[in-house]
Amino acid sequence: MNVVILAAGMGKRMQSALPKVLHPLAGKPLLSHVVDTARSLSTSGQASNICVIYGHGGEQVPTAIAADDLRFAKQEPQLGTGHAVAQAGPVLDDAVPTLVLYGDVPLTTAASLQRLIAAAGTDKLAILTAEMSDPTGLGRMVRENGKIVRIVEQKDASEAERAITEINTGILIAPTAKLKQWLSTLSNNNAQGEYYLTDIVARAVADGVPVVSAQPDAIWETLGVNSKVQLAELERVHQSNIAKALLEQGVTLMDPARIDVRGSLVCGRDVTIDVGCVFEGKVTLEDGVRIGANCVLSNAHIAAGAVIKPFCHIEEASVGAASQIGPYARLRPGTTLAEDVHIGNFVEVKNSQIAAHSKANHLAYIGDATIGSRVNIGAGTITCNYDGANKFRTIIEDDAFIGSDSQLVAPVRVGKGATLGAGTTLTKDAPEGKLTVSRAKQITIENWQRPVKVKK
Amino acid sequence: MNVVILAAGMGKRMQSALPKVLHPLAGKPLLSHVVDTARSLSTSGQASNICVIYGHGGEQVPTAIAADDLRFAKQEPQLGTGHAVAQAGPVLDDAVPTLVLYGDVPLTTAASLQRLIAAAGTDKLAILTAEMSDPTGLGRMVRENGKIVRIVEQKDASEAERAITEINTGILIAPTAKLKQWLSTLSNNNAQGEYYLTDIVARAVADGVPVVSAQPDAIWETLGVNSKVQLAELERVHQSNIAKALLEQGVTLMDPARIDVRGSLVCGRDVTIDVGCVFEGKVTLEDGVRIGANCVLSNAHIAAGAVIKPFCHIEEASVGAASQIGPYARLRPGTTLAEDVHIGNFVEVKNSQIAAHSKANHLAYIGDATIGSRVNIGAGTITCNYDGANKFRTIIEDDAFIGSDSQLVAPVRVGKGATLGAGTTLTKDAPEGKLTVSRAKQITIENWQRPVKVKK
Amino acid sequence: MNVVILAAGMGKRMQSALPKVLHPLAGKPLLSHVVDTARSLSTSGQASNICVIYGHGGEQVPTAIAADDLRFAKQEPQLGTGHAVAQAGPVLDDAVPTLVLYGDVPLTTAASLQRLIAAAGTDKLAILTAEMSDPTGLGRMVRENGKIVRIVEQKDASEAERAITEINTGILIAPTAKLKQWLSTLSNNNAQGEYYLTDIVARAVADGVPVVSAQPDAIWETLGVNSKVQLAELERVHQSNIAKALLEQGVTLMDPARIDVRGSLVCGRDVTIDVGCVFEGKVTLEDGVRIGANCVLSNAHIAAGAVIKPFCHIEEASVGAASQIGPYARLRPGTTLAEDVHIGNFVEVKNSQIAAHSKANHLAYIGDATIGSRVNIGAGTITCNYDGANKFRTIIEDDAFIGSDSQLVAPVRVGKGATLGAGTTLTKDAPEGKLTVSRAKQITIENWQRPVKVKK
Repeated sequence: MNVVILAAGMGKRMQSALPKVLHPLAGKPLLSHVVDTARSLSTSGQASNICVIYGHGGEQVPTAIAADDLRFAKQEPQLGTGHAVAQAGPVLDDAVPTLVLYGDVPLTTAASLQRLIAAAGTDKLAILTAEMSDPTGLGRMVRENGKIVRIVEQKDASEAERAITEINTGILIAPTAKLKQWLSTLSNNNAQGEYYLTDIVARAVADGVPVVSAQPDAIWETLGVNSKVQLAELERVHQSNIAKALLEQGVTLMDPARIDVRGSLVCGRDVTIDVGCVFEGKVTLEDGVRIGANCVLSNAHIAAGAVIKPFCHIEEASVGAASQIGPYARLRPGTTLAEDVHIGNFVEVKNSQIAAHSKANHLAYIGDATIGSRVNIGAGTITCNYDGANKFRTIIEDDAFIGSDSQLVAPVRVGKGATLGAGTTLTKDAPEGKLTVSRAKQITIENWQRPVKVKK
Repeated sequence: MNVVILAAGMGKRMQSALPKVLHPLAGKPLLSHVVDTARSLSTSGQASNICVIYGHGGEQVPTAIAADDLRFAKQEPQLGTGHAVAQAGPVLDDAVPTLVLYGDVPLTTAASLQRLIAAAGTDKLAILTAEMSDPTGLGRMVRENGKIVRIVEQKDASEAERAITEINTGILIAPTAKLKQWLSTLSNNNAQGEYYLTDIVARAVADGVPVVSAQPDAIWETLGVNSKVQLAELERVHQSNIAKALLEQGVTLMDPARIDVRGSLVCGRDVTIDVGCVFEGKVTLEDGVRIGANCVLSNAHIAAGAVIKPFCHIEEASVGAASQIGPYARLRPGTTLAEDVHIGNFVEVKNSQIAAHSKANHLAYIGDATIGSRVNIGAGTITCNYDGANKFRTIIEDDAFIGSDSQLVAPVRVGKGATLGAGTTLTKDAPEGKLTVSRAKQITIENWQRPVKVKK
Repeated sequence: MNVVILAAGMGKRMQSALPKVLHPLAGKPLLSHVVDTARSLSTSGQASNICVIYGHGGEQVPTAIAADDLRFAKQEPQLGTGHAVAQAGPVLDDAVPTLVLYGDVPLTTAASLQRLIAAAGTDKLAILTAEMSDPTGLGRMVRENGKIVRIVEQKDASEAERAITEINTGILIAPTAKLKQWLSTLSNNNAQGEYYLTDIVARAVADGVPVVSAQPDAIWETLGVNSKVQLAELERVHQSNIAKALLEQGVTLMDPARIDVRGSLVCGRDVTIDVGCVFEGKVTLEDGVRIGANCVLSNAHIAAGAVIKPFCHIEEASVGAASQIGPYARLRPGTTLAEDVHIGNFVEVKNSQIAAHSKANHLAYIGDATIGSRVNIGAGTITCNYDGANKFRTIIEDDAFIGSDSQLVAPVRVGKGATLGAGTTLTKDAPEGKLTVSRAKQITIENWQRPVKVKK
């Protein structure tokens, strides 16, 4: 199958420097949703021949979504939908039909398109149509004896035609050779001076090619994005669909209207997600994971039974089974926590590995560190991983105890079972099993006077 | 009154290891909602005789909700609703009627049930029925001359019967001796091979026992939970009801659709709650309390006029009048703050008492501490309450000033009016009224060269 | 034009110590919304003569909204709407018409009122009326031959009159001299013993003064607040309107139902705002700014291209272009950041200026500081700006490197290009270009025994 995706439009109402089809929905460009759907249509294992028609915004569109399986054709100037499809002509294979999709209609499902494709077979023109209770402004499907004979636009419709509630979604599939022939005969003799793709219906009827239809499961599958209002509406439709799918597979969502998934969220059994959470990229939550309110997770793996408390921010990190994270924990890229690790409030971990049963429960910065098992990192501990020019690693071996407010000036190693006294500035390795400190003598100043408020 | 609560079902569509009736709604198992409603029905001060029928999930159900006033009967195998009620037979008192409730129908109100009970009196069978605009799939109430004569299931209904919009909710109350007799005559001669409770209606009619009905105030009172989708729907209904009740008593909610109350939230006058807050357990907000956006409070008492700023996490803690907390303050179990205490950003307090007018405004960990009045805890202060094996207390007396980044190695005491210099590691008591420090001399290294970036 | 705003009501159902009209909607008293709309009506550049009728709550209302262009008249006792308007009599200019508005009807638009004013001209009584599908309880507009002849209240309406769906909103404009005359003839001979403003319609008809009408664009423009339920409803309507306006001007909102704007939010092009954000006061987001989930911004200026990550709290602060803030950054009043400044997690900045390209990425408190360009503030750094009595400034010059966990005891200066070692307590100025430290020698204790768990 050939797939032509129209993505040349300007999208002036988006009021943006970014071409309309590149605006993200659920974190992915509108056009990428359509491309991914097109890719999913290849049933026989044979990839479709996908051609994206671009125009507005110069090379931004092909640059943004470039892939080996995509072809691009530039439409310049932009003279209408019929003209747009015609630009793909040279790359369309006459032996298979051509499906026309729209880069700003992101939510059409593969199931609906498969029905359309089936309806078309190899020799019919098939149009995706929809019943609308209020079809005002949309092209109506005019049928005679049940057969589609033409599409009439709102402004050209008679009163009887305006009463028609079956509308044209614009999505269609046609025999390719015929399609090319019809496109070559289109006229731009109309108010807009454009070549309309819908005019091929009349050509098909004249040619005796049967014009059939299929319907989508839901109206939102056919809705396009022309403004930020519409973008927000489809974002909500999409998020609602995702929430419903999660619920149906058994995930507990405290409020399906308050979860945002921008990417893929894979959940095991008995996963619970509280209100206000955002998931980006590829996130996996294994069996029994609990995510507290108002967390943000991005490209994260959370192993079975781990509890993520409220206000956590986890990015490109892996959390081990039965770990307890947060509240207010930030795990940054390169963090790998083994099982039963505790990371508490106001703790930041970056590019570090922490082995099983270790804890950093309060106000700490752990960067570029390798930490063993059963280590206790005291409150306020900081790994000084940066000397202003280079970054170095800190190594803390099993069973070490790091006193509060210690600074570990990397590169440095704390030996197995070593203890650091509170407030230690560690500049050399701490030997295993012993207490290491750097501490000034505590003294009390006699006759000292407290400062008093200075009048200004 | 006897109350039989059916709670033996498997709930396969929940896709969970937890029995369906134990899934929480507003933080409490579905079944516990029903049990609590049953308890609330005892009008004469005489407790009802409540029997829970369990089955799926083994002893999890009786273990989870065990209480002195509850009896349990096991249904095994599970042969239908009539069979389930029959399991309770031995413990039902024939002298009073028997009400049948469902462990997966959590939101029926006591008011609706009281109407049903009143309709039944002592000698009638009364069924809770509801008008549904779309009754498809539900059992219809068939009436002749206005009297209920039987319940017909969707699949057995004639076209005329399918047009009936009054449906059976399943909730009913019956004279107990009659009920036992009817149950003993039920047949399982049907497609499912089950004994249906609804068949008692025909028995009652045959016996000349009047069959009457009552209606709930809202349809959601009769809805059951069979899937996470339905669980989420009822969670939202329940939260919406709670929000409305709070508004009606005068609480200002910035968005009634974005507050979650899982337990009891008791509010004084002129309380304001911003968006995205979650309340768990027993929370009390006295007059004039303001809760900022995105806070999580669990089993907390907030005294009059206190302000909780955004992003606070408060758990098993008590906040004194006119205190200022947050943003990003975490109060952990055992925290008791007196009046006009200020706890600021990135401060954690655990198992500590802080007296009036004291402040810890920035990045601190206060654990296992007793702090007097008018104490100023500097930024970065840490109580070192754990030596790796034991926990010890820190005592800071009235009017002390703790310099920034100090570590107080417990057990240790800071005397009245004492001052600690910045960066002090306090290992021995600091005498009252004096300045105590532990500080190395500040030196500047001549001819020192900054590190330079190493090429890799 | 004269504008009389009725704001004397008690608002008992609000259950609050605050007079009803002072309850905030979108952060501003209900009455202030009405006053601001009244102000916006002066078309000729000539300010309207605005008089607020107050009563309940003593002087709280005039105190709260006092302004040079407002007059106040006290209504005591409160004998109805007609009596209320009459209190303004002495200050109304007979030469121009008088518009009557309500302090508890906050969302009437200037556009709707302008239509009403135009309909009235100089000599007609014009009433804002609305079509309601369910008008139960509201005063109906009775027309004969299309002309308004009177208003009939629900309880006095005939069956035919109850079928009328055009209702009285209460908002009207009348020729002032006539209005005064009509008010002087009102009777309180009714069940409530009150003087009703609506009775002037009959007076006008009797006087041969034409009674005309205009309609608002939406019903919510005419809704009043009598309870917290209604306050929450109008808050949501207002927030929804603001969200829609932002979308229409091109702002990307991840969820229009989850943004709260309480003040003015001015956005440049290609601004994106994630879920759960709250904006208070005057906030400006320049081109390309991205606001992460769950942020709270109050009176803030965010320059072009800056990224605010989740969980930030920014108040009376200015963020420079291309800066990166958060997550969990708190910028307090008096913070001014130049371009490309990075403020990271668990960092608090107060009353400080930070020049371009400087960074404080982790757990720090920067208060009362002046910081140069390209400065690196290590994790855990604290400016000790408060000696218990006075506050002092810290100055850090360009290219300085502040080692982790340093304390800068103000007043103190770190010279250009100076380096502080980790854990330094800086009490005297650090000379430029050199390394300054205060550090005890690192020692290891031999034969030291770890504490063991004490049995209790």
